[in-house]
Amino acid sequence: MPALATALETPWRDRFAQRTQGMTSSAIRELLKLTERPEVISFAGGLPAPEVFPVQEVEQAVRRMLEQHAAVALQYGTTEGYLPLREMLVRHMARYGIKVGVDNVLVTTGSQQGLDLIGRLFLNPGDHVVVEAPTFLGALQAWTAYQAQYLTIPVDDDGMQMDHLEEALRHGPKFIYVLPNFQNPAGVTLSLERRRRLVELASRYGVPIVEDDPYGQLRYEGEHLPPIVRLDAEFHGCANGERSFRGGVLYLGTLSKTLAPGLRLGWVVAPEEVVARLAMMKQGTDLHTSTFCQMLAHEVARGGFLDRHVKQIRAVYGERRDAMLGAMSRCFPTEVRWTRPQGGLFLWVTLPPGCDASGVLEEALRENVAFVPGAPFFATGGGRETLRLNFSYCPPDRIEEGIARLGRVLARRLGRRHGSVRIDLEPVGRGSLQ
Amino acid sequence: MPALATALETPWRDRFAQRTQGMTSSAIRELLKLTERPEVISFAGGLPAPEVFPVQEVEQAVRRMLEQHAAVALQYGTTEGYLPLREMLVRHMARYGIKVGVDNVLVTTGSQQGLDLIGRLFLNPGDHVVVEAPTFLGALQAWTAYQAQYLTIPVDDDGMQMDHLEEALRHGPKFIYVLPNFQNPAGVTLSLERRRRLVELASRYGVPIVEDDPYGQLRYEGEHLPPIVRLDAEFHGCANGERSFRGGVLYLGTLSKTLAPGLRLGWVVAPEEVVARLAMMKQGTDLHTSTFCQMLAHEVARGGFLDRHVKQIRAVYGERRDAMLGAMSRCFPTEVRWTRPQGGLFLWVTLPPGCDASGVLEEALRENVAFVPGAPFFATGGGRETLRLNFSYCPPDRIEEGIARLGRVLARRLGRRHGSVRIDLEPVGRGSLQ
Repeated sequence: MPALATALETPWRDRFAQRTQGMTSSAIRELLKLTERPEVISFAGGLPAPEVFPVQEVEQAVRRMLEQHAAVALQYGTTEGYLPLREMLVRHMARYGIKVGVDNVLVTTGSQQGLDLIGRLFLNPGDHVVVEAPTFLGALQAWTAYQAQYLTIPVDDDGMQMDHLEEALRHGPKFIYVLPNFQNPAGVTLSLERRRRLVELASRYGVPIVEDDPYGQLRYEGEHLPPIVRLDAEFHGCANGERSFRGGVLYLGTLSKTLAPGLRLGWVVAPEEVVARLAMMKQGTDLHTSTFCQMLAHEVARGGFLDRHVKQIRAVYGERRDAMLGAMSRCFPTEVRWTRPQGGLFLWVTLPPGCDASGVLEEALRENVAFVPGAPFFATGGGRETLRLNFSYCPPDRIEEGIARLGRVLARRLGRRHGSVRIDLEPVGRGSLQ
Repeated sequence: MPALATALETPWRDRFAQRTQGMTSSAIRELLKLTERPEVISFAGGLPAPEVFPVQEVEQAVRRMLEQHAAVALQYGTTEGYLPLREMLVRHMARYGIKVGVDNVLVTTGSQQGLDLIGRLFLNPGDHVVVEAPTFLGALQAWTAYQAQYLTIPVDDDGMQMDHLEEALRHGPKFIYVLPNFQNPAGVTLSLERRRRLVELASRYGVPIVEDDPYGQLRYEGEHLPPIVRLDAEFHGCANGERSFRGGVLYLGTLSKTLAPGLRLGWVVAPEEVVARLAMMKQGTDLHTSTFCQMLAHEVARGGFLDRHVKQIRAVYGERRDAMLGAMSRCFPTEVRWTRPQGGLFLWVTLPPGCDASGVLEEALRENVAFVPGAPFFATGGGRETLRLNFSYCPPDRIEEGIARLGRVLARRLGRRHGSVRIDLEPVGRGSLQ
């Protein structure tokens, strides 16, 4: 029946749900595919350095766990997560002043899944979410699938600007999304004063806060600031661990940046009733996170190894950050500005007005150096003259070479742009600029 | 500010999205928590036998992969999946006559995630899905989150009854969901004739088929039947692998039943444009499936180990199925009927009319034997007098003991029910039956 066969070739698209219309592939992940050529120095991804992966410890941990608990490691597990891992996460967070019980912790398949489940729990089509401008692309991807609308708050060197928040809260958003430490993409940190103000405003308007903290442990200078979830618990008088954890914050953590992203392990901390609902939804999405990976992470991390390991990561990434900042001061044109992150994986570059970062990227790729243009990180537009640089992945010498190349590209580009201004006065030459 | 604090204690529930209203936790997973006491003989879960986990091979594979590819195993990966694993899956499926390319395969975090992504891709609130009655609970859980409505088709010993399908297709469902081999929960297999009829009808009405095949390789007697995806490709003239794969079937596979469920590895086969869309949606839900688990599965399976291993699983489970069927004929009252599956993990029991399986379960739990009542597997109600028994998890002696206990419970129950009929004629005694 060839007529029917032909009819079946194309109907897929017409059957797709409405939610698929706003969805696009992450610009970064598509770009990463292009930057896999070994000759490219890539500041594009958010990859941890493979040199810091604790390979030997992972191998030993696998051996121990298969000797002792193979039947559990390879079997189905509970949706909430492997209990010893959840208990370890409870102890881990207590050290940062986040006092919760096991029932407040849900293990997720990377913290990307935490973002997805939060969207699934809260968002009806058209609901508003407050996000920073710029903000983490993965969060926008997760929530756009639930047809969210965004209210954007600009960030400066002290993070989300609180004077803009109150107006956004009057629109009745479902929640506020904030990355307080060394934010992805801008690298900035929310000041203590603003954290307190955020808790106060969110509480006044009854709007939950989603605190995404993948980089909090990766601080290379300055003092650790209390997490928002802790300030919120203090504000609501349940911070001493005697009363059960409640309040207005969902906290997201991950092992991707401190242990290994390939295990896909994150967690959500929230009041019990919220964790129970998130777990119910997780059941339908992937039943549970790999038992094998959860046991492995627990086995590697216990006995304090992960703490020692994080110190090593800090030393390596801190050196790379310094290498990048040093090279930028030497090689970048003076009109270009950038953030100076105290931790994390990224810094943020602002080009002079009118200088489009995607044009720069095209030219940079020809010089075998890559980064991510900033515009996709802005949920409601803008940011064309910004870009994100990752400093964790490449060793210092590659960073210096890459920044030197990028500096040359920028110098040419800005020189030509100055040229372009001049040529604007002499229209004859314009064609050559296309 | 205690007034504000109080205001924040309860508002979570009011902020939840509409989709959460129809969602409930899986009855089975909640039940499993109760059956974890070691004295309980549980036929409730769908767990593989831990005795067949290839522990030694897993340990050797981890060692090899960390020696050779540690930096890849622990790092972020592509959303579509680890390429060598996808290539292996392509070869695997070719042996079953499913001729596709790598771009037709998406690796998922268990096939539960495949079900979720398919719901996300196709379902608007209120859309209809055709399912078997009974059907897999995990699928209902996944699609109820997208506010699906169900059209149910009864099954008999030859699977989904085709005479009922055409009427359902006139309602314009988004897709047809079918488990053709040793269906969960009923253990029945869709006959070849019905497979062909299904392809024909689905094609005539332009409705895609979701073919979920977790157990296809676990056949203990009889001949392997061609998968629906292959019959569909033949029907549409693209089965010889020369023309690119298309047609109306999304095929779901998993390594949970042949390798280990703790790795959470499944896959979807579909036309390229559908896989690309599913991958885009997977990005937002968990970025990608654990690279570590994917590499591990590939490393364990290559060189033909998994094929040898599946033969061993077949021998073990086949013996257990026989033990259960044998014990049932000896111990169950004659009014009770059950299916005789040729493979898979489950068989399906039908009690005499009016005998409620959840009442039987209560009594069975007191005798330390557990199963799953059948009603939750019916998307639109019914099935109160049915129940599901798993035969893969317990060794034969435990199976025989458990079935003997269950037989006693059933005999008592049915005896009392006969009693109840008699007492109905003498209303005086009724109160004692509550």
